[in-house]
Amino acid sequence: MKLSHAQLEPVVAAAIAKATEIRVPMNIAVLDSGGFIKSFTRMDGAFLASIDVAMKKAKTAVLFDANSEAAWEFCKPGGPAPGLELTNDVLVIFAGGIPLRTRDGELLGAIGISGGAVAQDVEVAQAAAAAFPA
Amino acid sequence: MKLSHAQLEPVVAAAIAKATEIRVPMNIAVLDSGGFIKSFTRMDGAFLASIDVAMKKAKTAVLFDANSEAAWEFCKPGGPAPGLELTNDVLVIFAGGIPLRTRDGELLGAIGISGGAVAQDVEVAQAAAAAFPA
Amino acid sequence: MKLSHAQLEPVVAAAIAKATEIRVPMNIAVLDSGGFIKSFTRMDGAFLASIDVAMKKAKTAVLFDANSEAAWEFCKPGGPAPGLELTNDVLVIFAGGIPLRTRDGELLGAIGISGGAVAQDVEVAQAAAAAFPA
Amino acid sequence: MKLSHAQLEPVVAAAIAKATEIRVPMNIAVLDSGGFIKSFTRMDGAFLASIDVAMKKAKTAVLFDANSEAAWEFCKPGGPAPGLELTNDVLVIFAGGIPLRTRDGELLGAIGISGGAVAQDVEVAQAAAAAFPA
Repeated sequence: MKLSHAQLEPVVAAAIAKATEIRVPMNIAVLDSGGFIKSFTRMDGAFLASIDVAMKKAKTAVLFDANSEAAWEFCKPGGPAPGLELTNDVLVIFAGGIPLRTRDGELLGAIGISGGAVAQDVEVAQAAAAAFPA
Repeated sequence: MKLSHAQLEPVVAAAIAKATEIRVPMNIAVLDSGGFIKSFTRMDGAFLASIDVAMKKAKTAVLFDANSEAAWEFCKPGGPAPGLELTNDVLVIFAGGIPLRTRDGELLGAIGISGGAVAQDVEVAQAAAAAFPA
Repeated sequence: MKLSHAQLEPVVAAAIAKATEIRVPMNIAVLDSGGFIKSFTRMDGAFLASIDVAMKKAKTAVLFDANSEAAWEFCKPGGPAPGLELTNDVLVIFAGGIPLRTRDGELLGAIGISGGAVAQDVEVAQAAAAAFPA
Repeated sequence: MKLSHAQLEPVVAAAIAKATEIRVPMNIAVLDSGGFIKSFTRMDGAFLASIDVAMKKAKTAVLFDANSEAAWEFCKPGGPAPGLELTNDVLVIFAGGIPLRTRDGELLGAIGISGGAVAQDVEVAQAAAAAFPA
């Protein structure tokens, strides 16, 4: 099963709505299960630095089939995989990347949100992921 | 003046409508005047190889402040600038990248379309650019 | 509004004057609001390693629309965004990158200074930024 | 002997003067004999695409210790080194890159000019090189 444009319209709309509500313009990236870009929206005023961060949060979520912050456990100081964050053309290992799955748990892709404090990014990413019609 | 999300909604919608009409799924990239991504849409079924092409068509249009195919005149066989297409991390020097401007001619960004035959890409890019509220 | 060559002449001259005064040869980078290089000066004797640092300080300031050291708060040990400095083809997250703005606060670009101790870089960057005719 | 800032002031001034005279804004890159950037000036209105081209013209001139177009002879169709232009992170093999030398012929660096037609670039590069106090 593949991520479809129709599935993503409510996801992106939910991200924009939540970001607007909390007044933090966001970068909204959606990648498919191969890590290829499917949709990207830079809201007006979102930090340019966050474009790359949003993309890499989504990519990290796809690559690990998990939330982006899961990768932190492996490469944090004292962790088992030092330097893991340097692989795959740089991972982003803090929160804001969330997988998008079917009801059966199959990975279809991931959303990555960046533009605010990490807690804000997560709030928007969760609102977006919740709008995904699995 | 900056490219806004509101300005781009009719542009992307026009691209999708034309691509749907001619039955060729397209990659639709919009970059700002600094070459930073503002919006990206991969229609269902669009070639993965065309993601990079769409991005680079738009980037070429921004970098030369002209349609992407304008660069071809410089680097075509026998042209004055052989290998120009290899600079700037590779240009795309065929049609499908079109600048987006204000009424006064100021460059705000560019659209890049890729997914079909070049003539089809151009048809969609022109429909999209025509919908831009300058 | 765009950064002009005429605006930058006093900026670069002020940087050179201050660096000469404190006897530390500097690399002086100026990027526009899209991150494209507008002016670069390597003073005689400035470290070659500092070329890339000066460029990336200015780029970081553009990308975050803030002094380069602002990014440090996010990715310092224990901070909320570990590894942020690895994104965007590597950020430079210590001081010496300062935005250049209009009186209305619009970002036109940034200056990045590198070649001495960080405090020296900052002294030169501040002298340069102060000479910018906003 | 090393390329000095003082030596380059008349070189860059001559480039700007000639470009202004022929009314084509140019990108003016000067690299040292190690290929490290020494000075860069983007004149107002110069093509963004030409930043990279100017840099790579100068780099090609340094790498071959010859005008940039000399590399064309090796990699032109039917030439002895097909694909040479893809090496060294891409060469620029058309004219506009000129070595800067001492009276004894020692290579100190090179100037690269890009922004107009190749003949215009060459005209500016020659004016600049002629102003170099060997």
